[in-house]
Amino acid sequence: MKIVIIGGVAAGTSAAAKARRNNEEAEIKIFDADSHISYSACGLPYYVGTEIEDMGELTPRDPNFFKKKYNVDVFTRHQVLKADACAKLVTVMNLDTREVFEERYDKLVIATGAKSAVPHIDGADKENVFSLRNVQSADRIREYVIYKEPKSAVIIGTGFIGLEMAENLKARGLDITMVEMAPQVMPALDSDIAVYLADYLNEKGIKLFLGDTVVRLEGEASVTQAVLTSGEKIDADIVIMSAGVRPNVELARSMGVEIGESGAIKVNTRMQTNIEDVYACGDCAESYSLITGKPLYRPLGSTANKMGRIAGDQITGGSLEFRGILGTGIFKIFDMTVAQTGLTEKEAVKEGFEIAVCHNIKPDKPEYYHGKEMVIKAVADKKSGRVLGAQIIGKAGVDKRIDVLATAITFGAKAQDLFHLDLAYAPPFSTTKDPVIYTGMILDNAINRGRELITPDELKARIESGEEINIIDARAASQFEQSHLEGAQNIPHEKLRASIGTLDKEKTTVTYCNKGVTGNAAQNILINNGFKKVFNLSGGHKNYMKNK
Amino acid sequence: MKIVIIGGVAAGTSAAAKARRNNEEAEIKIFDADSHISYSACGLPYYVGTEIEDMGELTPRDPNFFKKKYNVDVFTRHQVLKADACAKLVTVMNLDTREVFEERYDKLVIATGAKSAVPHIDGADKENVFSLRNVQSADRIREYVIYKEPKSAVIIGTGFIGLEMAENLKARGLDITMVEMAPQVMPALDSDIAVYLADYLNEKGIKLFLGDTVVRLEGEASVTQAVLTSGEKIDADIVIMSAGVRPNVELARSMGVEIGESGAIKVNTRMQTNIEDVYACGDCAESYSLITGKPLYRPLGSTANKMGRIAGDQITGGSLEFRGILGTGIFKIFDMTVAQTGLTEKEAVKEGFEIAVCHNIKPDKPEYYHGKEMVIKAVADKKSGRVLGAQIIGKAGVDKRIDVLATAITFGAKAQDLFHLDLAYAPPFSTTKDPVIYTGMILDNAINRGRELITPDELKARIESGEEINIIDARAASQFEQSHLEGAQNIPHEKLRASIGTLDKEKTTVTYCNKGVTGNAAQNILINNGFKKVFNLSGGHKNYMKNK
Repeated sequence: MKIVIIGGVAAGTSAAAKARRNNEEAEIKIFDADSHISYSACGLPYYVGTEIEDMGELTPRDPNFFKKKYNVDVFTRHQVLKADACAKLVTVMNLDTREVFEERYDKLVIATGAKSAVPHIDGADKENVFSLRNVQSADRIREYVIYKEPKSAVIIGTGFIGLEMAENLKARGLDITMVEMAPQVMPALDSDIAVYLADYLNEKGIKLFLGDTVVRLEGEASVTQAVLTSGEKIDADIVIMSAGVRPNVELARSMGVEIGESGAIKVNTRMQTNIEDVYACGDCAESYSLITGKPLYRPLGSTANKMGRIAGDQITGGSLEFRGILGTGIFKIFDMTVAQTGLTEKEAVKEGFEIAVCHNIKPDKPEYYHGKEMVIKAVADKKSGRVLGAQIIGKAGVDKRIDVLATAITFGAKAQDLFHLDLAYAPPFSTTKDPVIYTGMILDNAINRGRELITPDELKARIESGEEINIIDARAASQFEQSHLEGAQNIPHEKLRASIGTLDKEKTTVTYCNKGVTGNAAQNILINNGFKKVFNLSGGHKNYMKNK
Repeated sequence: MKIVIIGGVAAGTSAAAKARRNNEEAEIKIFDADSHISYSACGLPYYVGTEIEDMGELTPRDPNFFKKKYNVDVFTRHQVLKADACAKLVTVMNLDTREVFEERYDKLVIATGAKSAVPHIDGADKENVFSLRNVQSADRIREYVIYKEPKSAVIIGTGFIGLEMAENLKARGLDITMVEMAPQVMPALDSDIAVYLADYLNEKGIKLFLGDTVVRLEGEASVTQAVLTSGEKIDADIVIMSAGVRPNVELARSMGVEIGESGAIKVNTRMQTNIEDVYACGDCAESYSLITGKPLYRPLGSTANKMGRIAGDQITGGSLEFRGILGTGIFKIFDMTVAQTGLTEKEAVKEGFEIAVCHNIKPDKPEYYHGKEMVIKAVADKKSGRVLGAQIIGKAGVDKRIDVLATAITFGAKAQDLFHLDLAYAPPFSTTKDPVIYTGMILDNAINRGRELITPDELKARIESGEEINIIDARAASQFEQSHLEGAQNIPHEKLRASIGTLDKEKTTVTYCNKGVTGNAAQNILINNGFKKVFNLSGGHKNYMKNK
């Protein structure tokens, strides 16, 4: 039994280790064109920013480790030039000696990963334009930053890596400008959550150009200025390309392996490709959504590890199968955390779900215990009640809530299930009702109890369409005077009962407060007094002002 | 419709608020003998320790708030003397005026809470002996600590409150001695996890007397010394009783309400007692286990809130029902967190489950990102694979993992399901495979893949029973030389394959490393080489040394 694995980062090494755990006899070889294996690609931005000082911390395992621990032969700087599925052979070149040889396999695992998507920009070949993808590129950026002491950076793209690089370069004192083609930061998020992040980035002194692109990188050998489609010119001593990644599928395609609609290698739940005895896993392979069952390409270390383990199990007779992903992602920028899982509002709408949406603004802990506010946007299916996804931004406890929600969604949780979760409560960790529980209560009230929410976008659309809406600001007069929605009348919550007679019960009514709780209380009073159609403004005045 | 609620802390005010949200017309009255309502009892230890400076932060809501916001009449310092279920009347005394009056109800909600269980100890009536239960007692302790400047404290009991008080008094410079009747700290935990906590408390300079009790508190008006059953005498300028709480059920019992086997008021999932139109919720009411379906009394603010909301919904025609609890609990002491959910090993065994147990020792984040180690003890049912419970101790990320596990257990997760969770990964938040995922993998391997674990206790029991066991220490020779299990032979993992021939395949074999991972690798090698019965030592050398 000969197992050949192409690629030795997350998925490839996971496959090898699992195969060996199952089977002592198999001969297992890993070929990787790179000189580093099994490294933590997700740690690279922190190495560039010198938060992690030693690359050795990110590359704890070398070929010697795999030989000693797993009896796996790892060949670094060995590029697989081609693979022949009929003869079951791969052709390998030793990049140091240029020697070319053939290797027979019984099972082939393709774990070739992904590469940075480099947009075609005039001047992108200059010496100070970088992509972050592997150890070498991290070293190059770090060296450039340390020795050339650039003062300004232009980062192209506002995904995970772009934002993590922004943090790390900013921490080293560089002026940061981010250019994003989409009209919002982090295009994977809904725009009404992305605005919270954009405001925070501005607050941190990061300049943003949204809905814009770099058309030209000017300078001699080095870029000195980036020119945008909008005509804007930005000084740049270093340029980071972080416009996403693309799966490395050339080798797979050349041997006849089917490519999925996402552009990554199509695999079944056993990590099998269309060719017998050829498996694929990790960032080169296509995943699928646990919610919709449809193909989904979200190259992440956590998923690569799972896929690798499954491939390793399958090729040694195991029965482990992939169950799909929620596309759960998280990142930190300075002291802000942004996370998401499952479907965004725009994805859910695109999938045809009739949805309820809430913006739940709550502290992670009691205020008396220094709680910090987070915004949880959650989306649920109105028909089934099922929670479809969540996006969270906040300074503390975001990772916990996204993981609880991801777990609940995995098990098909409905909005009304969240209230019943017996989550751990003590003041240093949570509020008595955890923000996740509140999220469930709000969605349940909206879906099953007639306490409907309206998002800022929906409210604006209704007003624009000419609908007459009675907008009631249920906050104190002093708050109303500072700022309020156009056309709103101020009836503080405690005076609402006495003012019922002055209001038209037949008219569509929207209530709001600062963040939503008192708006809901006002909504309850109106509904219980026979008002026909009352919405509470999701996330209240605060969320509206972010999204006006 | 007249609703009378007895008790205005967590459950009573939740019931009132929910009832009002559902129903504008009902007349809602809350009677509470105390002068404070709706306070955060769980925050009280932090107020005593002055981490929270102002009691106002813990008591943000007063009767005026409830009147204005909810049109609920709250009567503080009003004690309900008796209740008549036939006449549907309660008799109330205004504790300030001594006036006694009757109040009619259509629905009665008993939310009388719990009180400290005060063990009968000679001298317990002295002026510097305190229990922490309500705002007044917190004020008294705080004042005593500030003005009398005690140098030493004896704390009786090592549950949540005792430990939180230990932290807060220690932070104020007191010498702390804790006396626990059980042979371990925190009797709710399994003893093999409690030892980690006990070691930590010792490290922090807190003296522990386990399996011991205070028989006498000596001194004149004030205690100066506590005398233990063991004969030990401990200086004490202040004594805190934290030997658990008991539900306040006297009023309920006197009106014929049935008391459950836990000693708390028996309620169904609608919070109904055996008497029509009489409901109970919060710390005076009995809960039940989501896992076993059996009665369970775990008075916690989070559960009280849920029960109150359900009672409030039910009395106004709603359909919300209680679904049981996992008994999830958490507390922080200095920089250590201890949490549990579901069944402990001892509870699972008592319930008749045939269980698999693992001790998973992992960092919460990558080591290069300052990860801190946690120990997750998890228990699963061997027959169904279902995860039954978990206990975690560690310095970071414990709250997240317990909540993810509580959520998974709620939905009936099996050990093999945890691996598939798509949890949020980035270096500041988690390892590529989250500790929860590893926990699932370890249990799945034990239950479904023949990679059985043995706990330190089981190993000791087998050796004591005379079983001959081959114990293999798979660590490096240098580690073996420092410390190893009695009778173990050292075969480092990488030399194990070459040493197979020297070992007896028929003999029961136990492998171990530092924490379990390499021990499992060694176990795999032996099993794959035909060894008949191989166990990996759960939690490795580290866990064994804690529990030897």
